[in-house]
Amino acid sequence: MGRDADGFLWDVLGLGCVAVDDLLYVPAYPPADAKVRVRRRERQGGGLTGTALVAAARLGARAAFAGVLGDDEDSRFVEDCFRRAGVDASPAVRRPGARPIRSTIIVDEADHTRTIFFDLTGSTGADPDAPPAEVIRSSRVLFVDHYGVEGMTRAARVARAAGLPVVADVERDEYPGFEALLDLVDHLIVSRAFAARRTGADDPAEAARFLWAAGRSAVVVTCGAEGCWRLGADGVPAHQPAFPVSAADTTGCGDVFHGAYAAVLARGLGLMERVRFAAAAAALKAMRPGAQAGIPTRPEVEAFLARGTV
Amino acid sequence: MGRDADGFLWDVLGLGCVAVDDLLYVPAYPPADAKVRVRRRERQGGGLTGTALVAAARLGARAAFAGVLGDDEDSRFVEDCFRRAGVDASPAVRRPGARPIRSTIIVDEADHTRTIFFDLTGSTGADPDAPPAEVIRSSRVLFVDHYGVEGMTRAARVARAAGLPVVADVERDEYPGFEALLDLVDHLIVSRAFAARRTGADDPAEAARFLWAAGRSAVVVTCGAEGCWRLGADGVPAHQPAFPVSAADTTGCGDVFHGAYAAVLARGLGLMERVRFAAAAAALKAMRPGAQAGIPTRPEVEAFLARGTV
Repeated sequence: MGRDADGFLWDVLGLGCVAVDDLLYVPAYPPADAKVRVRRRERQGGGLTGTALVAAARLGARAAFAGVLGDDEDSRFVEDCFRRAGVDASPAVRRPGARPIRSTIIVDEADHTRTIFFDLTGSTGADPDAPPAEVIRSSRVLFVDHYGVEGMTRAARVARAAGLPVVADVERDEYPGFEALLDLVDHLIVSRAFAARRTGADDPAEAARFLWAAGRSAVVVTCGAEGCWRLGADGVPAHQPAFPVSAADTTGCGDVFHGAYAAVLARGLGLMERVRFAAAAAALKAMRPGAQAGIPTRPEVEAFLARGTV
Repeated sequence: MGRDADGFLWDVLGLGCVAVDDLLYVPAYPPADAKVRVRRRERQGGGLTGTALVAAARLGARAAFAGVLGDDEDSRFVEDCFRRAGVDASPAVRRPGARPIRSTIIVDEADHTRTIFFDLTGSTGADPDAPPAEVIRSSRVLFVDHYGVEGMTRAARVARAAGLPVVADVERDEYPGFEALLDLVDHLIVSRAFAARRTGADDPAEAARFLWAAGRSAVVVTCGAEGCWRLGADGVPAHQPAFPVSAADTTGCGDVFHGAYAAVLARGLGLMERVRFAAAAAALKAMRPGAQAGIPTRPEVEAFLARGTV
């Protein structure tokens, strides 16, 4: 890939969490001490940043991963997912012994519950000192999550200093240094659960106002089937209804929302359009099984938005 | 390994189930739809035949595996377990796409429950036509389980025709052809649960009598902490108390009992001594974590039996 007219190599650069999800399908989630036969299994790529980058690429953005990968089978699986989706993993940091997050997900085929066992062993998130500042400045948008707060904060500082927007997907705020990272986020997109936990406000519009801060460009609070609330510089929260679709599998919908938002931010769309596009991408994803396998393409999202329905 | 004075290459030859067990340790077994962090994970070899053969080898027998293995990472893991334990896997049948059983075991660190999700995909058990009869006749004892009933039955016929004893570990009897296999078993060692299910007799001594058949040499019904019942040609069931130990992990104890029994059968021990040795091996295993990692050596079992206590 070469640099575009503005000198950028990529549209969206992510440094954070990548995961390998093993889904085990069982007739019913069992009680403790039971022995149950797995009907089928599936291995999928996942992770906040991993799925967001795959979504951005599927939606037409030039996406790249500059987080940490190891030399194990799971790291190779993540690279394969990136390669198939067209995400450039060449700026990734290689460190022996590093691993993606490994999740075992028990899917109840009757009740559709998903019970998740996640293993963070060897998973560090962003490297504190990598990638080089030049790599960070080569992307229109920097995408951060809460995995590797020190490295995320450094990268966000580099982006901010270069006038490049930082889009964040964060689910937890108890890590040391998290507040400094949050201060550097231009586009904060969080779930209603996180927003309520952090602000004490059950009302998502109110929570969005609490999450506003100096230097912020946008706050979005996602509420699943109840749509989302967006807040821009005008200070007036606005509601985006969810697109009414028949949901088959909502795994990864939040990550897809984030990736889609970052992808169209890189294209220069305004806040309302970004949120509408992201909501449409997440809705189409929800109709299909698989976190990454179900991500729609840009033409699919645009056709959906033009029709206003499936 | 060369042939011994009687022309045998091995003491115990097994054809059945091998497994790769991934143990995920969690603070508490969660309700459906929860998301829980795995504190640590461990990969262990397992399976009825796999663990029995490793036990037989650890206890001094020349053990060999002539079941089916594939070309995947899990098959290589099983081979590594066999190699480390000194089980000869050279007679194994190689078939692309074949796999060991894969189990994910959620271990509750507080309650010590073990919830098992097992995946039989690609796991066939014994091959219908392999190994060659000459391989089967090269072992003093043939060890069978209920995985691959057709191949087990063929192998048991070859062993019987050569006057070689067949030791069986079976947990299920609903497979087509199972009755023909059962008729060929000389040494039937089953759990109390299987015995009760099959015979309708809750009393293990009575169940042992029901399980006796023409051509049988021994029936043993294992009852965990309540010891076991043995039945030989005299027709009088006798009780073997369990050795009183402080159990840390009973995973694989049944398989170890079977492997130990087969190992000392090959050495020519009588029924009472075989059952006593197997019970001691299982008791020592119960004191240590890990299905295969916790298997004692022959000197350890003999010292334990000589002392009569830990």
